[in-house]
Amino acid sequence: MSCLWNSSSLFLVLLFCFFRFTQSGKVLVLPGEYSHWHNMRFILEELVERNHSVTVLVHAASPSIKYNQTERFKFLVIDSPLESQKVHALSEEMIDLWINQSRTSSTLGMALKIMDLASRIQAVQKVLCDSVFRNEELLATLKSFKFDVLLFDPMIVCGDLLAEVLKVPFVISLRLSLGYSMERLCGQMPAPPSYKPAPPSYVLVITTHGHLTDYMYLVERLDNLLLYIVHTAIVILSVIMFNKNYIMGKPTTLCDTMGKADIWLIRTYWDFEYPRPFLPNFKFVGGLHCKPAKPLPKEMEEFVQSSGDAGIVVFSLGSLIKNLSKERANTIASALGQIPQKVLWSYLGEKPDTLAPNTRMYDWIPQNDLLGHPKTKAFITHGGTNGLYEAIYHGVPMVGLPLFADQPDNMNHMRTKGAAVMLDINRMESKDLKEALIDVINNPLYKENIMRLSRIHHDQPMKPLDRAVFWIEFVMRNNGAKHLRVEAHNLTWYQYHCLDVATFLLSITALVMFIFVKTCSWIFRKCLRRTTTKNKKE
Amino acid sequence: MSCLWNSSSLFLVLLFCFFRFTQSGKVLVLPGEYSHWHNMRFILEELVERNHSVTVLVHAASPSIKYNQTERFKFLVIDSPLESQKVHALSEEMIDLWINQSRTSSTLGMALKIMDLASRIQAVQKVLCDSVFRNEELLATLKSFKFDVLLFDPMIVCGDLLAEVLKVPFVISLRLSLGYSMERLCGQMPAPPSYKPAPPSYVLVITTHGHLTDYMYLVERLDNLLLYIVHTAIVILSVIMFNKNYIMGKPTTLCDTMGKADIWLIRTYWDFEYPRPFLPNFKFVGGLHCKPAKPLPKEMEEFVQSSGDAGIVVFSLGSLIKNLSKERANTIASALGQIPQKVLWSYLGEKPDTLAPNTRMYDWIPQNDLLGHPKTKAFITHGGTNGLYEAIYHGVPMVGLPLFADQPDNMNHMRTKGAAVMLDINRMESKDLKEALIDVINNPLYKENIMRLSRIHHDQPMKPLDRAVFWIEFVMRNNGAKHLRVEAHNLTWYQYHCLDVATFLLSITALVMFIFVKTCSWIFRKCLRRTTTKNKKE
Repeated sequence: MSCLWNSSSLFLVLLFCFFRFTQSGKVLVLPGEYSHWHNMRFILEELVERNHSVTVLVHAASPSIKYNQTERFKFLVIDSPLESQKVHALSEEMIDLWINQSRTSSTLGMALKIMDLASRIQAVQKVLCDSVFRNEELLATLKSFKFDVLLFDPMIVCGDLLAEVLKVPFVISLRLSLGYSMERLCGQMPAPPSYKPAPPSYVLVITTHGHLTDYMYLVERLDNLLLYIVHTAIVILSVIMFNKNYIMGKPTTLCDTMGKADIWLIRTYWDFEYPRPFLPNFKFVGGLHCKPAKPLPKEMEEFVQSSGDAGIVVFSLGSLIKNLSKERANTIASALGQIPQKVLWSYLGEKPDTLAPNTRMYDWIPQNDLLGHPKTKAFITHGGTNGLYEAIYHGVPMVGLPLFADQPDNMNHMRTKGAAVMLDINRMESKDLKEALIDVINNPLYKENIMRLSRIHHDQPMKPLDRAVFWIEFVMRNNGAKHLRVEAHNLTWYQYHCLDVATFLLSITALVMFIFVKTCSWIFRKCLRRTTTKNKKE
Repeated sequence: MSCLWNSSSLFLVLLFCFFRFTQSGKVLVLPGEYSHWHNMRFILEELVERNHSVTVLVHAASPSIKYNQTERFKFLVIDSPLESQKVHALSEEMIDLWINQSRTSSTLGMALKIMDLASRIQAVQKVLCDSVFRNEELLATLKSFKFDVLLFDPMIVCGDLLAEVLKVPFVISLRLSLGYSMERLCGQMPAPPSYKPAPPSYVLVITTHGHLTDYMYLVERLDNLLLYIVHTAIVILSVIMFNKNYIMGKPTTLCDTMGKADIWLIRTYWDFEYPRPFLPNFKFVGGLHCKPAKPLPKEMEEFVQSSGDAGIVVFSLGSLIKNLSKERANTIASALGQIPQKVLWSYLGEKPDTLAPNTRMYDWIPQNDLLGHPKTKAFITHGGTNGLYEAIYHGVPMVGLPLFADQPDNMNHMRTKGAAVMLDINRMESKDLKEALIDVINNPLYKENIMRLSRIHHDQPMKPLDRAVFWIEFVMRNNGAKHLRVEAHNLTWYQYHCLDVATFLLSITALVMFIFVKTCSWIFRKCLRRTTTKNKKE
């Protein structure tokens, strides 16, 4: 009798529960480097935790992925003619450009240097792509694995093309692209320039102040529109240059293939973003790597406790910045020496002459554990997304010294939300940093604001890591997520904006008016002629 | 020592968990009628389950809310000069208009009748609003309750205005408005006419075929754009008429107050909707009322079991349709008699002459339990959102006989997704219904498609009811959800579309070009004069 009311829906639910807990999917990963890799590892670890098999495709010259270490996921190493040192040198060159050369170079000079560097980075990307697609053996191996999903970070391009070749659905992990071009042009995500400020990155950070929020005056909206136009033009040009590599049997383009992404995992959330329209396949997973703090090493804990009521300041410019100019390091150290807090500075460079006794330098710090420590009063950061989210998670106000990529945009968000002070690392003086620190620590508004963001972050229906993994698993379970993909992908830009409809409508209207006017004029002339003839006859 | 690493983040998390499980908020509810009320009750019951106090504001003339019955939430009854019978008569008049009069009336005649009915419904709404806002005692009582949130269905207007007066944040529960006008104009939700079809409701269902999907040819997109324009114009006109009631101390408008909604609970999901852009404060909670099936009453179960392998067909036109014309009822009953399945028909009208032995009529059926029964092969429905979601939940293909409101749009979604056949109840013949039923039951594609939608429905990160309640609780916890509200609310339409920026940019360009041309022409003339003078001298 029980089977009589054992409804199909209950069966469905049980089937899903069963499938969800016993499934074992095969995930192929093409990760980014540095902090991107650090972030993605948390997803991979969680996938392994849920019984999925994870294979990370890493090129031999990777400057930051230690593929020899004992991980719970497999590595598949791509041979390439590149050398790790040379790839890493490009990153160091970028940092040197920003910290040292930007102080002496003109705007045009900097723009030219950035363009030169960008073209060399693109050349490296091309070599990496070739080393995958010209390696028949590697492709055959990858095909034989029959992966269920490909997860990739567009920092290393060609992931979309690889998914196309392997015929697997794919998920993109992204913070943002230049002017949201990838999201807009390839992903069809709307970004209204009237209230969605474009990120002030790369070239244009020099020429515009870039301090836009979602509330903009006329001139700011003009500035924003120009930012979008210029950024979009740069991306379109560079994509056109790169598209020549996108020939797999039939010619395709980066946007064609990237637009097929089933899910876009965006590494932010509404604690950080200004609210704006988005699409159902864009999932916001900012702060997925954040965890409660663990106890500090004994010696570090003692130093922290020695700060008393004044508390501590945590200072890190990320894993990429290993050296500052002597003058900059002294400027910073001198400011740090003038505050009552103890400072823990993660820095590999030479010890500055002005280093005060309240500041201790470390090769490495347990940043998340320090930010979660009750004595932490402020965080001096370059504004990388990972560190910034740790500060939001633990509710620590910030002093931002952004350098490049998304860092200026990140810190601008925190500044406009009242949770940070932003300084120019290249131009600031000791007193600027000192005053910023005193302000951030003693003005209760900064703490209130970051705690508000922290509350938003913690008060979500689902943890960001669970959300990210849910949607990767969804793609595996359903061989994609086609029901979330907008039809806009199949429209041209003029169809999307209804320009063809408008043209059609205007043409019809014009035609009708033309016929009407012609008919009227013909009738009028006819009548006039008849009247004239009649008059003449009379 | 343990307190040393007891990070603030952990404390935060614990605080939230504690707050979430112990909180007891005060919810004021202004519900809709009929199926809207049926749907909202599930949210209210869940809120009570989670220890919140729920007060439902119901007017004495409510045609469908039984406020005398023993419920777990309180009712506060508003006195009004209206009579329940007269209010209900309006609904019956609408149904009569659609089922009976639409067969004999001309398009213009129907449009005029609908407009007349709509204006009388608006007059009733006006009386209901007045009976709240002119009742000082009621307002004082409501203020004294100090509610944390107001949940309302815009089927009964003024909920937004009440929230404004009581100074409480509010949540809207909505399926859709005419041409998505409320969502677009008041909620700032984007709806691109190039791939988001407007719902073919009310007046325009007569003049357009209304069978649009997200994939549209040029003429269809033109049709869609016109649908949007006409619907928007109708809504703007009727809102202008209604705005004169929106004076609470200072003049305001329906869109001004409704635009302040913290959360819009939309009663659909991506199993039903074509994917499209949306805003962070729009939460899709379609099917929140669906539950696994319970056992049927003994006699009904025996009738169902007697169907053998052929199975059963469930037939309901919703709680509103109590009578069909004799001719229509006979047409339907005759079709039902020609299929091998047993049919359970929920119908209060007279028994049709052509009723066959395989069909049994009921005053009321346990629709959800029947749809979840393994023997159910098809569902004949008017296409109300509740019934449609039960069919999706249990994976039962449909034959749709839509009448008014969102029903044509609902059934069109199911038809284009290959899960239903759609018929015109006023014009179909017996053989049309018979063929539709045979097709839906025997063509495996319908079952496959509805099972695909069912899988999407069940495979969500969170159950729709939990999602709805989470966001209502969020609004209570945080006194709103301001971080999800787009800045577009503070822009005019021309600012939103950057028209002021474009005008400014064009003016500057024109001015620069004007100065350039004038200067060139002046220089040219100067040079020419000099040359001419020189030539003359020579």
